[in-house]
Amino acid sequence: MSVIYNRVALIGLGLIAGSMAHAMRRAGLAGHIVGTSRTAETRDTAQEIGFCDEIVATAAEAVRDADLVVLAIPVGVMGAVAAEIAPHLKAGATVTDVGSVKRAVIDAVQPHIPAGVHFVPGHPLAGTEHSGPKSGFAELFENRWCLLIKDENTDADAVAKLKKFWEGMGALVDFMDADHHDLVLAVTSHAPHLIAYTMVGVADDLRRVTDSEVIEYSAAGFRDFTRIAASDPTMWRDVFLNNKEATLEILGRFTEELFALQSAIRRGDGDHLHAYFTRTRAIRSGIIEAGQDTDEPNFGRTTR
Amino acid sequence: MSVIYNRVALIGLGLIAGSMAHAMRRAGLAGHIVGTSRTAETRDTAQEIGFCDEIVATAAEAVRDADLVVLAIPVGVMGAVAAEIAPHLKAGATVTDVGSVKRAVIDAVQPHIPAGVHFVPGHPLAGTEHSGPKSGFAELFENRWCLLIKDENTDADAVAKLKKFWEGMGALVDFMDADHHDLVLAVTSHAPHLIAYTMVGVADDLRRVTDSEVIEYSAAGFRDFTRIAASDPTMWRDVFLNNKEATLEILGRFTEELFALQSAIRRGDGDHLHAYFTRTRAIRSGIIEAGQDTDEPNFGRTTR
Repeated sequence: MSVIYNRVALIGLGLIAGSMAHAMRRAGLAGHIVGTSRTAETRDTAQEIGFCDEIVATAAEAVRDADLVVLAIPVGVMGAVAAEIAPHLKAGATVTDVGSVKRAVIDAVQPHIPAGVHFVPGHPLAGTEHSGPKSGFAELFENRWCLLIKDENTDADAVAKLKKFWEGMGALVDFMDADHHDLVLAVTSHAPHLIAYTMVGVADDLRRVTDSEVIEYSAAGFRDFTRIAASDPTMWRDVFLNNKEATLEILGRFTEELFALQSAIRRGDGDHLHAYFTRTRAIRSGIIEAGQDTDEPNFGRTTR
Repeated sequence: MSVIYNRVALIGLGLIAGSMAHAMRRAGLAGHIVGTSRTAETRDTAQEIGFCDEIVATAAEAVRDADLVVLAIPVGVMGAVAAEIAPHLKAGATVTDVGSVKRAVIDAVQPHIPAGVHFVPGHPLAGTEHSGPKSGFAELFENRWCLLIKDENTDADAVAKLKKFWEGMGALVDFMDADHHDLVLAVTSHAPHLIAYTMVGVADDLRRVTDSEVIEYSAAGFRDFTRIAASDPTMWRDVFLNNKEATLEILGRFTEELFALQSAIRRGDGDHLHAYFTRTRAIRSGIIEAGQDTDEPNFGRTTR
């Protein structure tokens, strides 16, 4: 693979930016990678690991002469950082982001983008429950979707280049409009995360069931929820605050269904439950066929 | 390891019974394993795989002369099967079960147990989303808890032998009273399963978000729920119908918390969300330290 961007600036040095740096290097997609983080400790750690060619102290400094600027920071600070970097962006540069919410990010960032700079919002549907600069790895995006947002005003060449860049890191690329993205992700990500956080919170609350029991006996199902509920708190706070409407709508639907199933349990309606559980079983086969999860029992994990 | 039971009868030949057979053989815990299932196809498959020494057509036949009888069938049919085998049980034999609910199983089975036969209810906290005779494997119980139920009337020798038997299959053994078991499992297993089933059902319902999008973009969190929601429908129908009270109580607590978090999202109360998500993150560390889950990102699964 040949160099796609001569100079890439990573704003934020967490799981996603770190993984991008590893993946870019593996594929030789960037001439020079410069990274920055607001936190000195994060910069020092990234420096030690060495996944960037250069670590600088400010976002303004990082974006100077960059051909691609990646905003890999919590959704809630995208606007402020866009304002900060705007005067320093090179003409013809592309700015993208990796935020889990798209409408709010576009509203916050787009107004700051100078004429002659291309803003192409993005969202790689990849991650783990770990966060920070040490958690990144080159394979994170392999066979995972990266959704890019474009409209009739988006520069076609900038989009094509960014698509090639993500494909070079192993991702599958698709296009979507921002509002539809936010609704789809409310279903496949945001609502599931809030539900997992809630279930783990409830278990943690139950003083009658001691902590140690909840932990020791977690392999019966609960432990799966704790993985998701171990995700980065700042990132997820910002996701919910910035995709309120769609998330609350899906949670409303979820609550309705939950009440219907609770009522079936109370009434002893076994047929309703059995039919419901048979239907949900089928959807997993589709996910495995689509290459989006493993068929290995228990995700193939080993805990011995 | 030496033989603990000369003759073991497995009633039911699904994931748990199959795994027990494999694990017993590996450790040499049983002199002779006889298995049965109500379904001819299941018996044929088990015969082909060959994890039992003998497959018979009826439960009555299977338990004849057995030193240990394992009821590895859905919770809802435990009582009927206990009635069926009761006249054929050998004096001094031990009957156990592997049901996910304990109070209802005891109420259904105990009345049928003849004098001189020991009933020691059990529940191995192990499983996968797969079911049927082909899904079993010898390592399923390794480092997983098996909870045994005893009271002051339970024969101490029968309990000690069954404990040794489970330990021989790799399990950790603990004792618990039936009602406490049902409450703990409502938290660590039954409520999480119903919630996962519900979330997957909601996603399946949403016609605006096409099936293919929900499936393709599932790696953002949703796919984890689909694993749990792919569990055996009959088994889980019976769990909910037989642990109604505790499950509904935990689901009630869950709904309260969910409403509080939804309200925080609506109000834009980021501090509340951040504090909640920070607290839930901690519980996962405990589970990993207790050896009940892997610290590998995304459970270490490979989907490439």
